[in-house]
Amino acid sequence: NGHGGFSSDGREYVILLPWEGDGLKRPPLPWINVIANPRFGVLASETGAGYTWSRNSQANRLTPWSNDPVSDPHGEALYLRDESSGAVWSPLPGPCPAPVDYRACHGLGYSSFRCEQAGLIQETTLFVPREDPVRILRLCLTNRGTEPHALSVFSYQRLVMANQPQAESAIVTAYDDRLDILTATNPQAGDFAGGIVFANARVFGIEVEDHAYSADRLAFIGRHRDPSAPAALEPGVRLNGRVGDGLDPCFAHQVRITLAPGESAICVFLLGEVMDATELTALIGRYPDLDAIDAALEDARAFWTDLVSRVQVETPEPAIDLMLNGWLTYQNLGCRIWARSAFYQSGGAFGYRDQLQDAAALVAIRPDLTRAQILLHAAHQFQEGDVLHWWHPEPLERGLRTRFSDDLLWLPFVAAHYIRVTGDAAILDENIPFIVADLLEPGEDERYLQPHPSGENGDLYEHCRRALDRSLTAGAHGLPLMGTGDWNDGMNRVGREGQGESVWMGFFLYRILGDFLPLSEARGDRTSAERYRSYRADLEQALESSGWDGDWYRRAYYDDGTPLGSAQDAECRIDALAQSWSAISGAVPLARAEQAMDALEAHLIDEANGLIRLLAPPFAGTPKDPGYIKGYVAGVRENGGQYTHAACWAVMAMAGLGRRERAARLLAMLSPVSHTSTPETVARYRLEPYAVAADIYGTQPHVGRGGWSWYTGSAGWWSRVALESVLGIEIEGGRTLVVRPCIPSDWPGYRVVYRLPDGVTECEIQVDNGGLGGVIEVWLDGVALALDAGAARVNLPSGAGRYRVQVRLG
Amino acid sequence: NGHGGFSSDGREYVILLPWEGDGLKRPPLPWINVIANPRFGVLASETGAGYTWSRNSQANRLTPWSNDPVSDPHGEALYLRDESSGAVWSPLPGPCPAPVDYRACHGLGYSSFRCEQAGLIQETTLFVPREDPVRILRLCLTNRGTEPHALSVFSYQRLVMANQPQAESAIVTAYDDRLDILTATNPQAGDFAGGIVFANARVFGIEVEDHAYSADRLAFIGRHRDPSAPAALEPGVRLNGRVGDGLDPCFAHQVRITLAPGESAICVFLLGEVMDATELTALIGRYPDLDAIDAALEDARAFWTDLVSRVQVETPEPAIDLMLNGWLTYQNLGCRIWARSAFYQSGGAFGYRDQLQDAAALVAIRPDLTRAQILLHAAHQFQEGDVLHWWHPEPLERGLRTRFSDDLLWLPFVAAHYIRVTGDAAILDENIPFIVADLLEPGEDERYLQPHPSGENGDLYEHCRRALDRSLTAGAHGLPLMGTGDWNDGMNRVGREGQGESVWMGFFLYRILGDFLPLSEARGDRTSAERYRSYRADLEQALESSGWDGDWYRRAYYDDGTPLGSAQDAECRIDALAQSWSAISGAVPLARAEQAMDALEAHLIDEANGLIRLLAPPFAGTPKDPGYIKGYVAGVRENGGQYTHAACWAVMAMAGLGRRERAARLLAMLSPVSHTSTPETVARYRLEPYAVAADIYGTQPHVGRGGWSWYTGSAGWWSRVALESVLGIEIEGGRTLVVRPCIPSDWPGYRVVYRLPDGVTECEIQVDNGGLGGVIEVWLDGVALALDAGAARVNLPSGAGRYRVQVRLG
Repeated sequence: NGHGGFSSDGREYVILLPWEGDGLKRPPLPWINVIANPRFGVLASETGAGYTWSRNSQANRLTPWSNDPVSDPHGEALYLRDESSGAVWSPLPGPCPAPVDYRACHGLGYSSFRCEQAGLIQETTLFVPREDPVRILRLCLTNRGTEPHALSVFSYQRLVMANQPQAESAIVTAYDDRLDILTATNPQAGDFAGGIVFANARVFGIEVEDHAYSADRLAFIGRHRDPSAPAALEPGVRLNGRVGDGLDPCFAHQVRITLAPGESAICVFLLGEVMDATELTALIGRYPDLDAIDAALEDARAFWTDLVSRVQVETPEPAIDLMLNGWLTYQNLGCRIWARSAFYQSGGAFGYRDQLQDAAALVAIRPDLTRAQILLHAAHQFQEGDVLHWWHPEPLERGLRTRFSDDLLWLPFVAAHYIRVTGDAAILDENIPFIVADLLEPGEDERYLQPHPSGENGDLYEHCRRALDRSLTAGAHGLPLMGTGDWNDGMNRVGREGQGESVWMGFFLYRILGDFLPLSEARGDRTSAERYRSYRADLEQALESSGWDGDWYRRAYYDDGTPLGSAQDAECRIDALAQSWSAISGAVPLARAEQAMDALEAHLIDEANGLIRLLAPPFAGTPKDPGYIKGYVAGVRENGGQYTHAACWAVMAMAGLGRRERAARLLAMLSPVSHTSTPETVARYRLEPYAVAADIYGTQPHVGRGGWSWYTGSAGWWSRVALESVLGIEIEGGRTLVVRPCIPSDWPGYRVVYRLPDGVTECEIQVDNGGLGGVIEVWLDGVALALDAGAARVNLPSGAGRYRVQVRLG
Repeated sequence: NGHGGFSSDGREYVILLPWEGDGLKRPPLPWINVIANPRFGVLASETGAGYTWSRNSQANRLTPWSNDPVSDPHGEALYLRDESSGAVWSPLPGPCPAPVDYRACHGLGYSSFRCEQAGLIQETTLFVPREDPVRILRLCLTNRGTEPHALSVFSYQRLVMANQPQAESAIVTAYDDRLDILTATNPQAGDFAGGIVFANARVFGIEVEDHAYSADRLAFIGRHRDPSAPAALEPGVRLNGRVGDGLDPCFAHQVRITLAPGESAICVFLLGEVMDATELTALIGRYPDLDAIDAALEDARAFWTDLVSRVQVETPEPAIDLMLNGWLTYQNLGCRIWARSAFYQSGGAFGYRDQLQDAAALVAIRPDLTRAQILLHAAHQFQEGDVLHWWHPEPLERGLRTRFSDDLLWLPFVAAHYIRVTGDAAILDENIPFIVADLLEPGEDERYLQPHPSGENGDLYEHCRRALDRSLTAGAHGLPLMGTGDWNDGMNRVGREGQGESVWMGFFLYRILGDFLPLSEARGDRTSAERYRSYRADLEQALESSGWDGDWYRRAYYDDGTPLGSAQDAECRIDALAQSWSAISGAVPLARAEQAMDALEAHLIDEANGLIRLLAPPFAGTPKDPGYIKGYVAGVRENGGQYTHAACWAVMAMAGLGRRERAARLLAMLSPVSHTSTPETVARYRLEPYAVAADIYGTQPHVGRGGWSWYTGSAGWWSRVALESVLGIEIEGGRTLVVRPCIPSDWPGYRVVYRLPDGVTECEIQVDNGGLGGVIEVWLDGVALALDAGAARVNLPSGAGRYRVQVRLG
C-alpha cells in the first residue's frame, strides 16, 4: 500500500521508511504498537516515539505521553554519535534519522527497527517481558565496513512520574553504584509516591571504553533545543554526571565503544519501576546477561504466539484472516484490557462495560481471564446495584458514579455468556464485596468519588440480581428508562429528567433476561424468575406497541415523550442499534426483524464508502437536545459516522437472520485491511492497517477517514462476530463444539484450527460449502454425526486430544 | 547582568539576545511577561513563545500552554519568507531566529521585539487592549536597504479551545468572507462551548499582493516537522485555504508584500474570542485602522502607567524602587488577580485567601478593586461559614471544599484592613448570598463540587461573623484547631484528626479579633464582641503558656499533642511563621517578641545566600507525618527553602519591632533585583529580575535558585511591607496620611509621590533622616504639625489637591 505490509504469517506489520531527499517517507499518521503486560507497558510509533507507563497508563507515566499526531514528539530517544566525524543520528527513524532507508516492524509483543549506514547495521528491538515491570531496548550494532567505528551510544528518557511533566518537578534522581543504575523517586506522586523508577545501560560483546550518565534534562537537551538535536550530542560532549533534586529530570546514558571491522556489540537499556530496593535488586538480577534478555523476548513473543494461535482460520478473505489470526486478540488483551492506553486516548481506567465486553471476547480461548474480569467488575458494584461507570484500579481505587442505564447490565450479560460457553456455573457462587459511597443528589448526573467497602458481600448471582432488579424500570410506554445515557454516552439528555425511555435498552434487557432466567431457575430463585418472566412478557408487548415505527424500530423516547429515531424526524430518523438488537434480542417476530434490518441496509450501509453508519441523518439543527452527541460534527463518531462497535452488531444481526451473502462481506468491509489496501485508501483512511478503529468519518470532505485506533471495544466484538456469527463456531458447556456457518455461496469453505478453552483439546475444523449454506453433513474424526437443529453439534470427550471435524454445507 | 537590564524609568526590562554563531544567547530560563485584562490575556517569553487564553486561563486556552522551560515551545509563531531567496526566519527570537542580534523588551501591558537583518528592520509589539478579548500583534517592517524586498509574512496559532490540545479535535473552523477572518468553534468545549475564536491578518501602508489562509495544522507544520521549520514555509508554498471540521486545527495566515527601498509596512494580527456574531462584528469594527490599534496600545500602556504611578518612591536602594514603582503592582493585578496564570502554574481559579491578600495590597491605590474582590470572595462562603479553598469563576463556578482552618479568616482580616484604610465601613452592609453544598463526610479532606445558591443572604458583617464564629475553636492546649492545614498547605496531617492545634493560627486569630472587635462594637453587636473579647483573652493565655518553647514560639501541636517547631525536635525546630506573627499579632509581651525574632535571625536568616528560610532544619527523616510538605525535597519550597510570602512577614515583624537597620536591608535582599545583579547571580537564581518568585531553594547544590516566578502572593505582600512597614506610609479613614518610617541610619531619607485612594489627592512626601530614625518634625505645605504617638499623622482636607509633607527623623 505504499508504506508497508503484513509479514507472510500476518503477525508482523512491516513499515518501510525510505529516505526521500529531505526526510523519511512516513505513514499519514503515527502507526503505533501497544506493548504491555498486565502492569507495565510502552507505546511505540513507526519512528520509535512513544512512552512508558507503570501501574497506571494515565496517572503514573514514566515518560511523556503525547497525542499530537503531527509532530509525534520523542520523550524517549536513542542516539549514535560517530566519535571520529562528530556525526549524530538515531538508529530508530526518529528523532534525527540518518539519510538512509529505515524499516520498522510491529509484532505481537515487540517492535523492531533496522537501518544500515556506512556499513554499520543497526537493529533495535523494543519489548516488555511477560511479567516484569521493565521496558527493554536491545540495540545490535554490526560493523560490516572495513574501518573501525568509534561510537558513543546515548539513551534518553524525559521523566514524568505523574500524568504530565512538571516544570518544577519534585523528582529526586540518584546513581546506584552497586547496581550501576540511575534511579528516581517522586515524593509528590501522591498514591504512586512509593515507586522507584530506574534505568541502566549495558553493552555485551565488546569492551565499554567509557560510561557516563546524567539526570539533568536542561543540560542534555539544552535551552531551546529539542530531542532532534540535543546539546549533549554536540561533538566531544560527555554527559555531566549530575543527579539529585531540583533538576528538570531525565535519564540519560552514554556508552563509548569502538567496533572493529566485522565486530558486533549489543547495547541493552532497561527502564522500569519497582516498589522497593529488594525488588530492584531482584529484578536487575533476573537480567544478568544477554541470554536472559533474549529469553525474556522469546518468552514474551511465545506468550502472544501461543495465545493467538488458539484460533487460526483460513478463509477466502485475507481481511478476515489477518485480523482474526492475531492482531485483534492482541489489540483486545494488550491494549484494551492491560494497557488501557493508546495514541488517541490514554485513560488508564477500567470502563465498567468496556473491559467486560472485551473480556467476553476472550472466553473462547482464555476463559480464566474472562472469569477474573467478571469478578473484578462485580467488586465495583454499589450496594444499590449500580456500578462505577469507570474507575482507576489501585492504588487509586476511585471512579465515577453516574446515572447511565446500561453499565450494570453488562455484568449479567457477560456472566451468562461466560457460563454458556464454559459451563462454569460455579462462578455464580463466588463471594464478592459490594462498595458504598454517597448517592447522587437529585439533578446530579455524575460524581467522581472514592468508594468504601460496604462490609456486605454477596455471591455473583446476587450481584447480577441487584443489577437486574435495579434495571426493571418502565416509563410511560412500558420501556426501560434511559437515565443519562444508555450504550450511547452522547445521548445523555434524552432521558435525563427520569422520564425518557430507551428502545435499545428494551431489546438488550429482553435478551439478558432470556439468558439469565435459566440461571435463576437452576438456583431455585423462583421469586426472581417469576419477576423476570413477567417483566419480559410486558417488555415484549411494549417493544411491539411502542418500539415499532412503521418501517423500523425507534431508538428512544425523550423525557417529554417525543420519539427519537422515527420516520417523522428530520435528523436521526433511524438508528442502527435498535434494528440490530431487534434481531439479536429475539424479542420481535422474525418478519419485523427482517424489515428492520432491511431498513438498516437501505439507510445506514454505505458500501461506496465502506461504512455502516450509527444513525442517519446526523444531528445538526434538531431543536430537541439529545445530549452532547449533538456537539460532534455531523458524521463524526457517534453522530452518524461509523461507530465500529455498533457496526459489528449490525453484522451479527445479519448473520443471525441468515443473510449469508451480506454478513461475511460486511465483516470484511469493517476490517482495517480493507481500508488500507492501496496508497489511495491509506491516504484517506490514514490509520494503522493492523488495528481496528473506533470510528470512521461519515461526511465530506473526510468520508472514510479513520478516527481513533486501538483503544476500542470493537476489537473484541469484531472477533466474536467473525468467529461466532460468520464462521459460526461456538463452544457450549466447555466441551460441545457447535458449528453453524453463515458464509456466502461463493466461498468454497474455510478451515479453522481451534484449541478449546481448556487449552489441551484441539479441533481442526474443515467446512466445505456446496453453495446453499445450510449444514447437511458432519463427521468427527471421519465418523458421521447426526445434525442438531440444523447445526453441527459435536460433544467432545473430556481430556486432552486432537479432533478432526468436517462439516459439509448444502 | 549579561542578559539585559531595566530601562531608565524602570518600567521596561530589556533582554538582549545576541547571535553567538550557533544560536542566540538566552537567559537561563524563559523570562516571561503576563499581559492581561480582566477577561483575556497572553503569556510571552523572551523568544515570543507563550499562549493566549480567554475567560479562563486554564480551562479555555485558545493556544497551548506549556511549562517546559527547556524547550519553551511555540504554539504561536510569526514567520517571514524572502520570496526571492526562499530564506525563512522569525521576526521574534523564536522559533527560527535569523543569525542576527535580537532585542526583547517586556513592559507593563506589552512586550516588544526588534531585529534588523539585511537592511530589513523588524519591530513587533504584542499587547491586549484594556478591555477587549483580543490579542494584538503589530509587526512593523522597514526596508532600509537599496533593493526591493518581496516577502511573505505568516502568522500561526495552534488551536486548543480547551485545557490541552486534543488529537481528535471537535473544533470547526471557517472563513468569514464578510469580515475577512478565520473563525473556530468547539461544540465539545463544555461550559465554554459558546465561544467563537477568530483571527485575522491585515497590512497597512502597502498593497497586499496575495492573502492566503489555512486551518489545517497537519499541512502547515507537516508530518514530523515542528514550528521551527514548518512545511508551509518551504519555498513557494501558498497556504492551502482548508477550513472545516475534522482538521488538526490551527489559524494560519499568509500575506505577500513587496517593500521598495525606504518603504515601511505594518502587519497586524488579531486573535480573540467573542460570544456571538454581533460581538464579533462590533469588536472587529473597533479596530478599523492603524490609528485605532495604536490608540488601543497607548490606552493599555496608559492604564498601567497611571496605576503604578500612584506610588512612586525614591530611596537609596534601587532594588526597592524598581519593584515598588511598577513591576510588583503589575505582577499583582495583571498576573495574580486577572490572569491567574504564569509559566510555572496556570490554575485559572481564584484561591480564597490568595486573591484576597493580593487585593489587600491594592487598597492604597485602587480601593474599588479591593472592595470588589472582598465581595466576590464573600459570595463563595457556605452557610456554615467555611469557604471554597479555590474556585473557577463562571461559566464553571465549581471549587474545592476543604478543612483548611485559615481560608475563611482572611475575609474578616482583609475587610478590617480595607475599612481601616478607606473608612468605608458601609461595605459591611453589602448584602451577599451564601452558597450551599454537601458537607464533607467524616474523614473526607476535600471535595471538588458545584455549589448552589442557598437562598440565604447576609450582609458582609454577617459573612465575617460566621467565618469568625466557626474559627473560635480550642484544642487541648487552648489553641485553635489546625484542620487539614493552616497557612502552610503542606502541613496537612498535623491536625487532620481534629485534635492538632496551630500556634500561628492563634496569633492570626488574635490579630483579626483585635481588628474586628471595634467593628462589632460599632454595629452594636455586643454578644459577638463579648464572645470575641473573652476568646481573645483566653487565647492570649494559651499562646503564652503553650505557644512559648523557651527560646522561640512553637509552630503547632500534632493530633497526639506532640509539639512541632520546638527545640526538642531534630527537624523543623523553628518555623518563621510563629515568630513573625508573635510580633505582628501584638499578642505577646514585647520582650518575648524580641526574643522570638532574635531566634528567627539566628536560625532562619541566611545572609550569605540571601535567604529567609521558612523553617529549619527541613523535614527529611522525622518519624512524625506533618503532611505532604515532607514530600518536598529538603530545602525546597515550604520545606525549608525561602517561601517569599512568609519572608515578607519576617520583614514586617522586624519593622514592627523597630529594627531599622534590618528591615530595609532584608526587604532589599528579597527583591529579585538583588538576585540578578551580576552574570553569576543570574546563573544561580535563573528567574526574571523584574518579578518576585514564590520560593528560593535553600540547600546545596541549588542554594539561591529561584523556584517559581510571577504567580505568587508575595508580590502584594512585598509591596505592602515596603510601603507600609519600611517606608511607613499608610492611610487611615481615607484622608489621614500616617508616616512612621523604619529606615536604616545610613539612609539620608527618601521621597514618595503618592496619589491617595480617592485618585485626586496627591502628596509629595519628603523624609529626611537625622540618623536616629524617630519622627521629630512634620510639616504640611510648610506648616509644622504636632506629632501623634511618635508618627507624622496628617489629616488631609477633602477634595482634590496637591500637598507637600515633610518629615524629619531624629
